[in-house]
Amino acid sequence: MSYPTLPKSVRIVEVGPRDGLQNEKGVISTEIKLQLIDKLADAGVRYIESASFVSPKWVPQMGDAKAVMTGLQRRPGITYAALTPNLKGLESAIEAGVEEVAVFGAASEAFSRKNINCSIAESLERFAPVMELAKANNIKVRGYVSCVLGCPYDGEIPPEKVAEVAKALYDMGCYEISLGDTIGVGTPLKAKAMIRAVANVVPIEKLAAHFHDTYGQALANLYAVLEEGVAVIDSSVGGLGGCPYAKGASGNVATEDVVYMLQGLGIETGIDLNQLVATGNFITDAIGSTNRSRVGLAMSS
Amino acid sequence: MSYPTLPKSVRIVEVGPRDGLQNEKGVISTEIKLQLIDKLADAGVRYIESASFVSPKWVPQMGDAKAVMTGLQRRPGITYAALTPNLKGLESAIEAGVEEVAVFGAASEAFSRKNINCSIAESLERFAPVMELAKANNIKVRGYVSCVLGCPYDGEIPPEKVAEVAKALYDMGCYEISLGDTIGVGTPLKAKAMIRAVANVVPIEKLAAHFHDTYGQALANLYAVLEEGVAVIDSSVGGLGGCPYAKGASGNVATEDVVYMLQGLGIETGIDLNQLVATGNFITDAIGSTNRSRVGLAMSS
Repeated sequence: MSYPTLPKSVRIVEVGPRDGLQNEKGVISTEIKLQLIDKLADAGVRYIESASFVSPKWVPQMGDAKAVMTGLQRRPGITYAALTPNLKGLESAIEAGVEEVAVFGAASEAFSRKNINCSIAESLERFAPVMELAKANNIKVRGYVSCVLGCPYDGEIPPEKVAEVAKALYDMGCYEISLGDTIGVGTPLKAKAMIRAVANVVPIEKLAAHFHDTYGQALANLYAVLEEGVAVIDSSVGGLGGCPYAKGASGNVATEDVVYMLQGLGIETGIDLNQLVATGNFITDAIGSTNRSRVGLAMSS
Repeated sequence: MSYPTLPKSVRIVEVGPRDGLQNEKGVISTEIKLQLIDKLADAGVRYIESASFVSPKWVPQMGDAKAVMTGLQRRPGITYAALTPNLKGLESAIEAGVEEVAVFGAASEAFSRKNINCSIAESLERFAPVMELAKANNIKVRGYVSCVLGCPYDGEIPPEKVAEVAKALYDMGCYEISLGDTIGVGTPLKAKAMIRAVANVVPIEKLAAHFHDTYGQALANLYAVLEEGVAVIDSSVGGLGGCPYAKGASGNVATEDVVYMLQGLGIETGIDLNQLVATGNFITDAIGSTNRSRVGLAMSS
């Protein structure tokens, strides 16, 4: 019996400074964010989602997106991306010199309506001018699909629905599709089935796994989709963010825990785990949050 | 491409009342232990390791082993087991009417010497009279092997060494061998390799996975060994126990998190998850500990 074939290397997309911090309580200073981004780069992270150009009325923690994107010390070989959910956001991002952005849709109608107040089809329509302007400015666009393994309102989501939304974003010009288990309810075989359904319509090398650890399943699900060939993983240092749908519960899987597993699997990430753990301790200390990385806790004791 | 073949059902060996509570601070009353054991049975758990017959000088939390084993309300179809590391422990267990016991050896020489103050070979020799007395009294014996995926003193442990110790215990008459990642350092492919090495010398249906979650890897490792055919899992409700080697870190994987994953995988356990979550909340509240089950936290919020 042979061992499963896993990717030789995995690209980590660090979402802590955006997806993570946006779900932490209170406003975090631009200076702390810039330090976090710099420490992540020091640790070897090569893709850092650094800000979100949304209305500060909705997401006050991201109100300094321009200051962050213009203040950071760009280094060659590192992508500093920003979320731009609409045309206005993209225009601001362009002014701030952002070279890569992300848009997001949901695989669940109910979540789409409650979260962005429109149907899935409408949300995709709204991205058309965003994609066009990005293309005109040579800006790469990454696409997120949320609720790929379950929805807080609709429950189970058929893999075919996820595939449909992923394909729509891919066809519109997103170079990579990040598949989000937004509420962390998935389990390994469901994660495999979802990935297979999407890989039928979008090449697997264009897919990323963005799994939350709310029910402690994220690493098991990630291992399962590594077996399927997924080689891009979104994660959040220190498990920053928590879960807006379940108080006290975990949100994004912690980057430290992912990198530890990948190292054990012999998969290259280019990241120094000790520096990453130090970065997780730095940011959770700085904002007075709990370090939700189990590796961070074990290696710091 | 087909999906991995997983077991149709898994037997959960609940170790919270013993392995869990023994690593919690302070002495826990017999009454609370009996309530915990009863609630676990109510939730559908069919195997409960309930006490340890060791010197109360070493493990004061287990000083009431006899009171627990004679005080519990036995129900048909449920096994109430106890740890008996030596002949004296077994004699006390027999007096208390215990019908199944467990012994333990280490796969690491250094751990064996530091933990039980003798070599692996010597520890196995000491079990010979224990096995004999157990057999004479029709008592089933389960064997634990610790440090199967790494040792706090020796580092990596060769899978062949684990296989050797597991086979020795099996040959001595242990009907099942529980393979313990005592410090939770394993990752999925290492877990698979270890299981394969052991399954070469002990039938896989006689093996149990006893994984700790110190580095957050337990569920990923469990999923990986389910793919190998392992169908017995040791776990601890509420993640009771913590880790004596890393302050603030997790110890035994939480039963709730395991059962959630198994349910998602379509694997039968006979356990009611809601009742199990309530039991995890009951015991962690009762002893003033942190609930370390992510499912427990998510489902209670």
